[in-house]
Amino acid sequence: MQWEGFFNLKAGRIGPSIIAEMARMVGPDGISFTSGEPSADLIPLEGLKAAFKKTLRDDSLFSYPSTPGYPPLREWISEWMSSENLAPGWLDPSCVILTNGSQGAVNLVAETFIDPGDLVLTESPTYPEALLAFQREGSVILPVPVDEEGPIPEALEEVLARRKAKFFYTVVNFQNPSGCTTSDRRKAAILDLARKHAFFILEDDPYRYLRYEGKPNRSYFEMAGDDQRVIYLGSFSKILAPGVRCGWCAFPPGVRKKLLEIRLSLELCPPALTQGAVFEFLRECDLEEHLEGLVRVYRTRRDALVRALQDSASSTGLSLSVPQGGFFLWGTCRGMRDMFAFAKHAALEKKVGFIPGRFFYPTVGEGEDTIRFAFAKVTPEQSMEGSRRFREALESFPGRHCL
Amino acid sequence: MQWEGFFNLKAGRIGPSIIAEMARMVGPDGISFTSGEPSADLIPLEGLKAAFKKTLRDDSLFSYPSTPGYPPLREWISEWMSSENLAPGWLDPSCVILTNGSQGAVNLVAETFIDPGDLVLTESPTYPEALLAFQREGSVILPVPVDEEGPIPEALEEVLARRKAKFFYTVVNFQNPSGCTTSDRRKAAILDLARKHAFFILEDDPYRYLRYEGKPNRSYFEMAGDDQRVIYLGSFSKILAPGVRCGWCAFPPGVRKKLLEIRLSLELCPPALTQGAVFEFLRECDLEEHLEGLVRVYRTRRDALVRALQDSASSTGLSLSVPQGGFFLWGTCRGMRDMFAFAKHAALEKKVGFIPGRFFYPTVGEGEDTIRFAFAKVTPEQSMEGSRRFREALESFPGRHCL
Repeated sequence: MQWEGFFNLKAGRIGPSIIAEMARMVGPDGISFTSGEPSADLIPLEGLKAAFKKTLRDDSLFSYPSTPGYPPLREWISEWMSSENLAPGWLDPSCVILTNGSQGAVNLVAETFIDPGDLVLTESPTYPEALLAFQREGSVILPVPVDEEGPIPEALEEVLARRKAKFFYTVVNFQNPSGCTTSDRRKAAILDLARKHAFFILEDDPYRYLRYEGKPNRSYFEMAGDDQRVIYLGSFSKILAPGVRCGWCAFPPGVRKKLLEIRLSLELCPPALTQGAVFEFLRECDLEEHLEGLVRVYRTRRDALVRALQDSASSTGLSLSVPQGGFFLWGTCRGMRDMFAFAKHAALEKKVGFIPGRFFYPTVGEGEDTIRFAFAKVTPEQSMEGSRRFREALESFPGRHCL
Repeated sequence: MQWEGFFNLKAGRIGPSIIAEMARMVGPDGISFTSGEPSADLIPLEGLKAAFKKTLRDDSLFSYPSTPGYPPLREWISEWMSSENLAPGWLDPSCVILTNGSQGAVNLVAETFIDPGDLVLTESPTYPEALLAFQREGSVILPVPVDEEGPIPEALEEVLARRKAKFFYTVVNFQNPSGCTTSDRRKAAILDLARKHAFFILEDDPYRYLRYEGKPNRSYFEMAGDDQRVIYLGSFSKILAPGVRCGWCAFPPGVRKKLLEIRLSLELCPPALTQGAVFEFLRECDLEEHLEGLVRVYRTRRDALVRALQDSASSTGLSLSVPQGGFFLWGTCRGMRDMFAFAKHAALEKKVGFIPGRFFYPTVGEGEDTIRFAFAKVTPEQSMEGSRRFREALESFPGRHCL
């Protein structure tokens, strides 16, 4: 039988993930700046394995888990967010749901709020897998440009003067892909706009604790306070291990009932066995020390890549914006007209991988000369070699205009 | 802020799970025939824990898993289904995706195929959490009545004479809730209708290996052969442990690409750590012996409940249909006009829980006098006591008409 006629509109609205495709293209032996994954050698394996073994003692975790997720971890998160001043005073564990990574939380919100034709604000550029979920549900994306201080309120206001949006999706710290961090001043201005124009804010914050310099900032979630206008997403993927598939969303009481009903219809509940292991790990470990260790290594990797690219590629028209944390270095290649063709050339001919920036833009045709390097998995030595290959790829690229 | 105006149409289309609600109502100290859960004492805990510990040695499982799921388990399932004659010759591991339980697979299909207004055929009565996913996506349900041999082809044909359906969702063995098993003759007739009327079949088969008598039957998936008109759903929740949250769907190559794109947008991928543990368990265990052990105990429990209800409740107008396997005993209470009121009365006053059958019917107003008892978790002694309470509840029910 022919299946083409059976797929729904949603299936027609989405395509494959470009990041997975580029990662495959460069292959396992290449030097890859493609995926925003934590470095495997920084996953606290011993601690997590011990935590798993401890969790296995609880026989009840082999039966059906509760719909919102493992209660002790939800309590831990609620207390942690409060003690870090990330949450308003009303937050309690009943307003925390554990999800299959951040993507599960992004999707849960998409499933609960987006109707086809709804307008959704996102940063431009932004995280493409969030766009997949939003576009799948039929939303129309309204892009809001960012600068080094985050999304630009004046640009947001200009959009809102003409359109009515349902929510604004924003990656607040060391944004994927641009690396920008939203200042608290900007957050206050954008919250004002949210109140004025009656939209809510979906705050995605997976990189918060990977800050290499500067001072921690506030969250929209806490700043909104009793206005309760924000849903906050966190994740253990970047700071513990992506393989535990454990993220969360924290939300106002007014959305709990519907989020739980939708969650049940999606999957009943994810495994409490992995959530239990995350909880046991967090209870035993010195989290501050663990995070300091990550920051030390990732900072060194960021600096090494910046130096290597500046040394070997400064003559090539590449300009970089250096983030204060996170996994991504964002660049512009002056005069580059087809970055995707160049990326394929570099991956196949020189075995160096990166992501053409245009895939992070909600609007087709934007960001053609931009480029994203993910540095978390790349040692300083590999960055030297990767930068050399990048320059060679540029020099040998038949269609190069990046000079 | 007021959230009411922000929810989408999907959120408006679904409500809470009645099964979870009834389970809560009877409380942990009551005797509960409510949830279709396996018995905790039949979960092979030692084997699963050993398998988990072995799985933990593979450091790579702490990084991002592959989108379709842990490859060795997908291979194992593909080979198993083939060796059990459940799969057509073309099945290979690339046509198997691991999901967060069966519900994850039901949802994946709903997300990939249903547009609002699409017509979906289901058995009547049927599994209500599947209805949640289908209705959430805006499908209109066309009910097909069942008898002891499964869905009635003539009734199906009558529906199809007037309507164009996209797919038929069917629980083929020891159906939840009615306990009926679709005969191979019925499957052949329904496959003919599927070809003639151009719909596909979503075959949900979580109870296949819990057969207490009679001979195993064929699957739609295998019977369709090269016509490739069937998506098959399996699960380890009922035969190993629901807490591993591991189900799967097996499907024709023509749907692979879109299923994977949708899956990525939903959750990236579920944890390979739990999938790996399932694989290690299956590799080490004598599955046949394990399943025989389950069958022995569950058969005894089914028989004990049937006997107890017939002894204590035959004078009450309750008639039962005894299933050849699975978890559910389905009954009709002659003259009962408000089974939900009676169920609440029984749960609160007599501490015995069961599910009013009407919640399994896609059409409001049907099955008012029907009732589902889940017996898997209930020992013979508890069944005696539960049946006694059931009769007492009936006798003390102010609105009783079941005589």
